[in-house]
Amino acid sequence: MKGDKNVDIQALKDIANKLRIDSIVATNASKSGHPTSCASMAEIMSVLFFNTMRYKISAPRDASADRFILSKGHAAPILYAAWAEAGLFPVEDLKNLRKLDSDLEGHPTPRLNFVDVGTGSLGQGLAVAAGMAYVGKYFDQAPYRVYCVVGDGEAAEGSVWESLHFASHYKLDNLVVIFDVNRLGQSEPTSLQHQLEVYDARLKAFGLHSLVVDGHDVSELVKAFDEAATVSGKPTAIVAKTFKGKNFPGIEDLENWHGKALGAEGEKIIKHLQSLIKDSTVSLKPKAPLGEAPKVHIGDITLSAPPSYKKGEKVATRLAYGTALKKIADTNMRVIALDGDTKNSTFSDKLRNAYPDRYIECFIAEQNLVGVATGAACRDRAVVFASTFAAFFTRTFDQIRMGAISQSNINLAGSHCGVSIGEDGPSQMGLEDLAMFRSVPTATVFYPSDAVSCERAVELAANTRGVCYIRTSRPNTALVYPNDEVFKVGQAKIVRQSPKDRALVVGAGITLHEALSAANSLKAEGVEIRVLDPFTIKPLDEAALVQHARAVGGRVVVVEDHYQAGGVGEAVMSALALQRDVVVQHVCVREVPRSGPPEALLDKYGISASHISAAVHQVLKA
Amino acid sequence: MKGDKNVDIQALKDIANKLRIDSIVATNASKSGHPTSCASMAEIMSVLFFNTMRYKISAPRDASADRFILSKGHAAPILYAAWAEAGLFPVEDLKNLRKLDSDLEGHPTPRLNFVDVGTGSLGQGLAVAAGMAYVGKYFDQAPYRVYCVVGDGEAAEGSVWESLHFASHYKLDNLVVIFDVNRLGQSEPTSLQHQLEVYDARLKAFGLHSLVVDGHDVSELVKAFDEAATVSGKPTAIVAKTFKGKNFPGIEDLENWHGKALGAEGEKIIKHLQSLIKDSTVSLKPKAPLGEAPKVHIGDITLSAPPSYKKGEKVATRLAYGTALKKIADTNMRVIALDGDTKNSTFSDKLRNAYPDRYIECFIAEQNLVGVATGAACRDRAVVFASTFAAFFTRTFDQIRMGAISQSNINLAGSHCGVSIGEDGPSQMGLEDLAMFRSVPTATVFYPSDAVSCERAVELAANTRGVCYIRTSRPNTALVYPNDEVFKVGQAKIVRQSPKDRALVVGAGITLHEALSAANSLKAEGVEIRVLDPFTIKPLDEAALVQHARAVGGRVVVVEDHYQAGGVGEAVMSALALQRDVVVQHVCVREVPRSGPPEALLDKYGISASHISAAVHQVLKA
Repeated sequence: MKGDKNVDIQALKDIANKLRIDSIVATNASKSGHPTSCASMAEIMSVLFFNTMRYKISAPRDASADRFILSKGHAAPILYAAWAEAGLFPVEDLKNLRKLDSDLEGHPTPRLNFVDVGTGSLGQGLAVAAGMAYVGKYFDQAPYRVYCVVGDGEAAEGSVWESLHFASHYKLDNLVVIFDVNRLGQSEPTSLQHQLEVYDARLKAFGLHSLVVDGHDVSELVKAFDEAATVSGKPTAIVAKTFKGKNFPGIEDLENWHGKALGAEGEKIIKHLQSLIKDSTVSLKPKAPLGEAPKVHIGDITLSAPPSYKKGEKVATRLAYGTALKKIADTNMRVIALDGDTKNSTFSDKLRNAYPDRYIECFIAEQNLVGVATGAACRDRAVVFASTFAAFFTRTFDQIRMGAISQSNINLAGSHCGVSIGEDGPSQMGLEDLAMFRSVPTATVFYPSDAVSCERAVELAANTRGVCYIRTSRPNTALVYPNDEVFKVGQAKIVRQSPKDRALVVGAGITLHEALSAANSLKAEGVEIRVLDPFTIKPLDEAALVQHARAVGGRVVVVEDHYQAGGVGEAVMSALALQRDVVVQHVCVREVPRSGPPEALLDKYGISASHISAAVHQVLKA
Repeated sequence: MKGDKNVDIQALKDIANKLRIDSIVATNASKSGHPTSCASMAEIMSVLFFNTMRYKISAPRDASADRFILSKGHAAPILYAAWAEAGLFPVEDLKNLRKLDSDLEGHPTPRLNFVDVGTGSLGQGLAVAAGMAYVGKYFDQAPYRVYCVVGDGEAAEGSVWESLHFASHYKLDNLVVIFDVNRLGQSEPTSLQHQLEVYDARLKAFGLHSLVVDGHDVSELVKAFDEAATVSGKPTAIVAKTFKGKNFPGIEDLENWHGKALGAEGEKIIKHLQSLIKDSTVSLKPKAPLGEAPKVHIGDITLSAPPSYKKGEKVATRLAYGTALKKIADTNMRVIALDGDTKNSTFSDKLRNAYPDRYIECFIAEQNLVGVATGAACRDRAVVFASTFAAFFTRTFDQIRMGAISQSNINLAGSHCGVSIGEDGPSQMGLEDLAMFRSVPTATVFYPSDAVSCERAVELAANTRGVCYIRTSRPNTALVYPNDEVFKVGQAKIVRQSPKDRALVVGAGITLHEALSAANSLKAEGVEIRVLDPFTIKPLDEAALVQHARAVGGRVVVVEDHYQAGGVGEAVMSALALQRDVVVQHVCVREVPRSGPPEALLDKYGISASHISAAVHQVLKA
């Protein structure tokens, strides 16, 4: 039976049921997983992978190929099954699902060569897809399209609605989001169940071209995807009415089957599914991409000009961030910036003013901001810097965490760290951002203390794999380094020393300046201290810390504009944990601060020069 | 001029302009702040505070009074002005805005007796308001109403749409959300500018009774709030078309005036505003609450029965969490639980099954989950426990951070921590949750290692102020403590010791069991170790750590199912930072894990018994 346009409808139906069987076999082999969540989207996968999408089995992440994001990552088995049935690897391998030595993990990760980002924390896939679509439409200007399957359960995540708004605002007509409305969540029915008309109304109100379809009708799906390809100026939403466990007799549309292998039930159900298949040898090959995406080079990023500050100048590191961002954008067309309506505070507007087409305003929706950044960085299409206040990156911790799993290379810049922002008060102060970013295993954390080191931090971040974070400060601060100073990831700087040093003080950002001021006061009292600027908090220069801590008799003071846990202090303690005869006095913010002038706050919360001096005196007694 | 129902329309107009003047005076005195963001909502505030809302100046946070949440917290000056004009404190005090010794901070915090929660991180207020409205409608069953002003910029936050859906799903007709659509964000116009019809369509699609009004027309606003009070079964949204800097000639509706005091311009503008006021001595008093909210007692929470486990039983701490939650709910009617569609995994369904009316399903929208919890806990109306996977609380870090500023007493329980969850893989593993919660200054962090201690953790959390976090594990684990063991916050337990101990091993949760297993193996080799269970990671029992670390010769091993930064290891290092002659060997997860059987993962990622034994041998050489 052939349908319109030579589509082999029966073959697509058969493949859908084969994908169901594969999903049961895989999850039965692993004795865990989500076969019913796979079953609801079997026809969607069949149509996408064997009719609609254009890609290459020989190069699954080819720059020119259509992208597919499985936002409902728990349906991983059917994603794996689709690639196996398409010929990427033997179907038999699906039985290795969730095994320790297999990359076919419980939820998809880019350890697999056909997965762009990790999914499984719900509601994040669409932002990534939107980032890819933005790059495709505006930077690559290539015909590839982006498809994203979102579960109805996860459609409750606000992040999904941020991304829908973003996609419609930027007219991403190369993006198709499919809502697999299978009615059932993990622990009970979703709040909207099968109210397809509510989804449809919301999506239309959010500016999408929305179509409601029977998600198990292959012909309807083929038609819907064809229609989506003709829509201009809007992303398309396909709201698919489906049933969880579709074609699983005794399980379909019933509760209490979420995330469970079918076990003994599976054999009977496989037989039933086999009976639905007309031709068990059916096989379809994907269409090739329509055109080539441009070749891009995103390595070896450099500042267009070295830092050029005048002696005695006072410059905020946040301003130097903007200056450097524009400079690296000068030398590479694929350097782009994103911000969440704080560009005139983070100074990402420096890039925007110079290269408006390479700036993406994400408005006040930080989860989507980081998700779009992640998507834009995929397949090495762009060098992405996303910025907002350090405090507001806490909004995106889940996205950042998933960024590590996704092997993402995004660069994030958080301004307005610590109490030194002053009068705006605690809600605007990033006081836990270092704890957050240090916990991310793939992260590099820069905390520049002057404009020169900040410019170099930006340049280094652009060339460093993994998630990079640059922490910048609001106040204007003195220059610490000459314009030609060379910086490396993981290399600390000793900014003050003498042979008579009796303690090592570690400061960063604003507190490095306070430490230098304390050093002057202490010297007047006859106490010499060594001052270390870590430059990167992760990796931390352990060798330098050990060497200098030992050189001063094991007396260390760490001072930071951050809460007690997880910041510079504990990073230093970790570095020195195996050293006997070393003590660390930690000077940090220990309570929720209040509004006030920056200098008054540094003093009130115990991290000003005078408190550092007091801490040095204390540590001298230890 | 009197309007309908004896409303003094002119007085409300005059008060609106007085509030504008107050906002200018305050921000000019502090030389910073957001006067233009205040000006757009002056009529909204005038009508709410001097006509619509029912409250008591004598008791601003009275349980029976209407609630007001300023989600756009940067408009704090006009909130302060409203209370001053209503008579709570002298208008003259507004000049102390943002001063170090004033509680009139840059953004509102509950240091002020008329503020329920801190706002200023955008998009969070509505969830709090929805939590309050839920309690008002379903638990208090009192006539008080909840009003929340949301800025149009922050309406881009997905969290707002989570809360709108929640409010309509639960038919919170005692909730009114006002969108102050002033068209301008911080750095550029909002994406929707004055497309009021788009807001209206989205809000209607989300199930609200939506009204578009001229936000500067006092009569329209009075009518809209009156209409809202008659709507049944739906929350009302009032979409107010406003202008940023309204009535500020030369500033109104112009860009580049966000977050700036007017300075010298201010004098002229104040004169203009004075010219608009008919009666500068005008004063209106609020209406009294319509009825009393019930008196509730939320202190002295106890388990209805002590832990009663049988010797040899193996019980997951997540299951014990559910058991204890139900037990404390037995003894206090105001113990409630919330979850995000994981109740059959976190076992919060134990409470739901016993007391369905005291369980709030928040579906997969964690930001709203924590926001609703925060709102429900306000004014000491309920003892709130909210649960999801530990990993997914990262989604809510900004809400948790604001919970500290809000002096919130919410209890959060995160299940499925660490690699010990097994096959689901890294996206589902909480490996950074301790770093997150430890960074929160008001937090108490429980990490129970068996069912008995977990039950007591729940009981203690219910009685502990601040944000409490309980970290639970997925696998079944042996009992460590007898049923009658007594636990205290900040009190560690020594679970194994001998006079010959040569190292102290600190483990928690699953790793305490691995540590005990390592102790057996080591004993067989002739090496005795002491094993410490911290019970609470914050506060950590520093005295016990110091005492026992010293007793074993300063050799400490910490093992945890968490990433390296910010967890138990660094907490222990902080506790021992000032001790000379102590070394800490840290055994933790150091890379992004993969899927696999729990025990295989513990071993692969280096935190199993054999790795602990190896670490002990290593530390013996230090």
